[in-house]
Amino acid sequence: MFETAELGRKTSKEDYRKQEPFLRVGLLTAQYELRDADFPVILVLGGNDRLGCTEVSNLLHEWMDPRYLAANVFERLTQEEAERPRFWRYWRTHPPRGQIGLYSREWTARAIVDRVAGDIDEVGLARRVRNIQVFEKALSDDGALILKFWLHTPKHALKRRLKAAKRTPGRAGRVVKEDRRIVKRYGEMKAVAERVLGETSRGEALWNVVESTDANSRDVTVAQTIIQALTKRLAERPKSRKPPRSARAAAAAITVLDQVDLSRRLEKDDYERQLKRLWRRLADLSEKAHTRNMSSVLVFEGWDASGKGGAIRRLTHAMDAAHYRVIPIGAPTDEELAHHYLWRFWRRLPGAGHAALFDRSWYGRVLVERVEGLATEDEWKRAYAEISDFEGQLAHRDVLVLKFWIHLSRDEQLRRFKVREKVPFKKYKIAQDDYRNRSRWNDYEVAADEMIQRTSTDHARWHIVAGNDKRWARIDVLKTVCRAMARALKK
Amino acid sequence: MFETAELGRKTSKEDYRKQEPFLRVGLLTAQYELRDADFPVILVLGGNDRLGCTEVSNLLHEWMDPRYLAANVFERLTQEEAERPRFWRYWRTHPPRGQIGLYSREWTARAIVDRVAGDIDEVGLARRVRNIQVFEKALSDDGALILKFWLHTPKHALKRRLKAAKRTPGRAGRVVKEDRRIVKRYGEMKAVAERVLGETSRGEALWNVVESTDANSRDVTVAQTIIQALTKRLAERPKSRKPPRSARAAAAAITVLDQVDLSRRLEKDDYERQLKRLWRRLADLSEKAHTRNMSSVLVFEGWDASGKGGAIRRLTHAMDAAHYRVIPIGAPTDEELAHHYLWRFWRRLPGAGHAALFDRSWYGRVLVERVEGLATEDEWKRAYAEISDFEGQLAHRDVLVLKFWIHLSRDEQLRRFKVREKVPFKKYKIAQDDYRNRSRWNDYEVAADEMIQRTSTDHARWHIVAGNDKRWARIDVLKTVCRAMARALKK
Repeated sequence: MFETAELGRKTSKEDYRKQEPFLRVGLLTAQYELRDADFPVILVLGGNDRLGCTEVSNLLHEWMDPRYLAANVFERLTQEEAERPRFWRYWRTHPPRGQIGLYSREWTARAIVDRVAGDIDEVGLARRVRNIQVFEKALSDDGALILKFWLHTPKHALKRRLKAAKRTPGRAGRVVKEDRRIVKRYGEMKAVAERVLGETSRGEALWNVVESTDANSRDVTVAQTIIQALTKRLAERPKSRKPPRSARAAAAAITVLDQVDLSRRLEKDDYERQLKRLWRRLADLSEKAHTRNMSSVLVFEGWDASGKGGAIRRLTHAMDAAHYRVIPIGAPTDEELAHHYLWRFWRRLPGAGHAALFDRSWYGRVLVERVEGLATEDEWKRAYAEISDFEGQLAHRDVLVLKFWIHLSRDEQLRRFKVREKVPFKKYKIAQDDYRNRSRWNDYEVAADEMIQRTSTDHARWHIVAGNDKRWARIDVLKTVCRAMARALKK
Repeated sequence: MFETAELGRKTSKEDYRKQEPFLRVGLLTAQYELRDADFPVILVLGGNDRLGCTEVSNLLHEWMDPRYLAANVFERLTQEEAERPRFWRYWRTHPPRGQIGLYSREWTARAIVDRVAGDIDEVGLARRVRNIQVFEKALSDDGALILKFWLHTPKHALKRRLKAAKRTPGRAGRVVKEDRRIVKRYGEMKAVAERVLGETSRGEALWNVVESTDANSRDVTVAQTIIQALTKRLAERPKSRKPPRSARAAAAAITVLDQVDLSRRLEKDDYERQLKRLWRRLADLSEKAHTRNMSSVLVFEGWDASGKGGAIRRLTHAMDAAHYRVIPIGAPTDEELAHHYLWRFWRRLPGAGHAALFDRSWYGRVLVERVEGLATEDEWKRAYAEISDFEGQLAHRDVLVLKFWIHLSRDEQLRRFKVREKVPFKKYKIAQDDYRNRSRWNDYEVAADEMIQRTSTDHARWHIVAGNDKRWARIDVLKTVCRAMARALKK
């Protein structure tokens, strides 16, 4: 892969001077057209020539409008980053539609460097590669144009460059230990890079290996590639993001949800006795979780009026308000709409020892967005895999992930709507939407059933709660949480 | 102050039971009405009874809807927090309109504790108090309802509480060193608290001192106070945020801007020679700044087409793209609109060793928002003080703050508009708005003149740049930045 890139191509100073104005106008024009387009650009600069990456990054900032171009260089993990899954820092710096994010020392380069340094083994590397594939596919499926450049320099040329840099005033500081290590372990790094690049060079995110020996030739190649790819993409008829109105689903055959025994009830005495016992237990467990830096992510989905809020409050009763956040998910803000739909959830992941309780969640993609036709069929179908990867990363970081679907019968829902309309401080909870959603019960049932089947994984299983009796549901949720926390704390 | 609060008030268990349902309904109703209101609530819980603060915080989460209530407890500074001015962490957790933010161990409590621990001296304390006053006034002026409670417990009762807590399972962990220190240094803490509370108890943010010896009585008092204050505020006719169309200003008398010598020019040869020299210098200086963790905030304001973008690019040419961000300020997003106008700038402050270059800035408040009537007279007039405090905090944290107003004659502006319309990759820069703004030249001139006079401080002076000749302007900006950085690095 790298040998074929070692073409010894050179661009003379004169030639470069001639091409520069065209490259600049080309980049700038494409960048300004992008401003009105409906997708972001992810520009990755990696390679064994780290000084070259910095040079190209600086040049692009110079040639383009730096206001809509943000460089992200990832060094050692900060405390906030270390407390969350690895990809958190890449998600939170993700550019909004119409803008360009430039990434150096990013997910792929980091995986390679960590493997060469021995920080991860082969299994760890394989996991990273999978994460990279899913990450890039998710962004690309969402419309992002991903352009990846690997600046490759043969060993002798690399040595020469480092020496020259050390002598240049204002540049010596840029040669660091890692650069010297790359030269020293040239062969090893090359072997790992070759493998990883091959595995992460996929249709939606191909690697462009560019020889970096001659800076002029390198700059021209990178700029031309960006102009071509961006212009081509801008010229494509924008894929209509207006999804077809989803057809009403036929009533589902027998679903997982049909098997829920909604007749389960709990008497008041029994309920209160169990509640007190479970509260003591949860207070103890959540205190321990905080002390031991264990984080949790709890997801609550279910029909309108199924009692999600009540179940959440019965949990938080026993927790310290400083250690949890209840996060209600409604319609996205315009900042959120300008990003991939998972961005707003990544942003809100809890730090070490904290819990996030999501009142509705990323599953909206395969529930309300599917049923109401807010997401295309492609979009919600690929969401299953994206969500599994997201939750997998949480689990890998030892975050406890628990998901509840609170089930309810149609009759019981109607009864609760009527009650809400009468009780003064409950009337805020009822909206016209609720009745409209109710009329699409069948469609929601089909969607929920498929969701539960497709996204129940070992590390993030769905717990289906019989919700017709609120007492039963609350105790069931409390018990499940306590059991899962106790198990996780034993590890 | 505290003695008068030691009333020995008690609420019997029975009484408490009777009042509880009314308090809950009252809180919940007020909270739901707040959801549609145009202001946030800042609820501060401080005091020598830290266990009590936790209890009250948990209780409020239980009685209200935790989805629109976020508890913020501030421990030691995280790395990201330590790199920015002290109030950064309070600004970034500021609740949006319609929601409640609950703060413990916050700005006031922290100042008191730091003073008692000897981490700051009297001068430092005085500065903190000033920061607190400006911070709370800014939020309150923007509409926020600020409710501050200081839970006070006499020494003997405090000792008893800590002992009891240590024996309670699941609570022992909550008694920490700081709690024991409070008892030990009871008198000292009381004296400092009394003074600081007095100085930060102002019309817009009064302290409510509540005796915390009897938990029932404390809870009832806090809940009642919240209900009363919130209900009262909700009942007030909402202040019309629709500002009166600002009258056109009379042509200003002689302004600061009139004194700018716009005839200054630089020949091409001279320009290029100076440019190269300054670039070398800036590359060196900015590399040093990064290594030494010095951050900079550069602000660019000026007429449309005055060459802000060009001046910025001439700076970034010599800087490493990984160490700066160019931040264009346009119309706010809806998330930004839901907060105080300074929130979006606080969020974007650079970390240690980084630079932020703002292409337009917080000064929009006293420029475009003033002239176009987007801010009321009250709002833009008080912005001068708010901005000075903001920049003062940056300077106090040793952030280099530089502000440029690039000046231009009306004729030159028109000439540039015409050029932009003809050059393909410049036409993106011209919009109908530009011509409309141009027609209000006089008003903008008055606003800019007042802004420069009112916000030129020792630590953040305005540099007025003669912009009719682009070369002159760019060299002037470069020189000013180099000089300021060199001076700052010498300190």
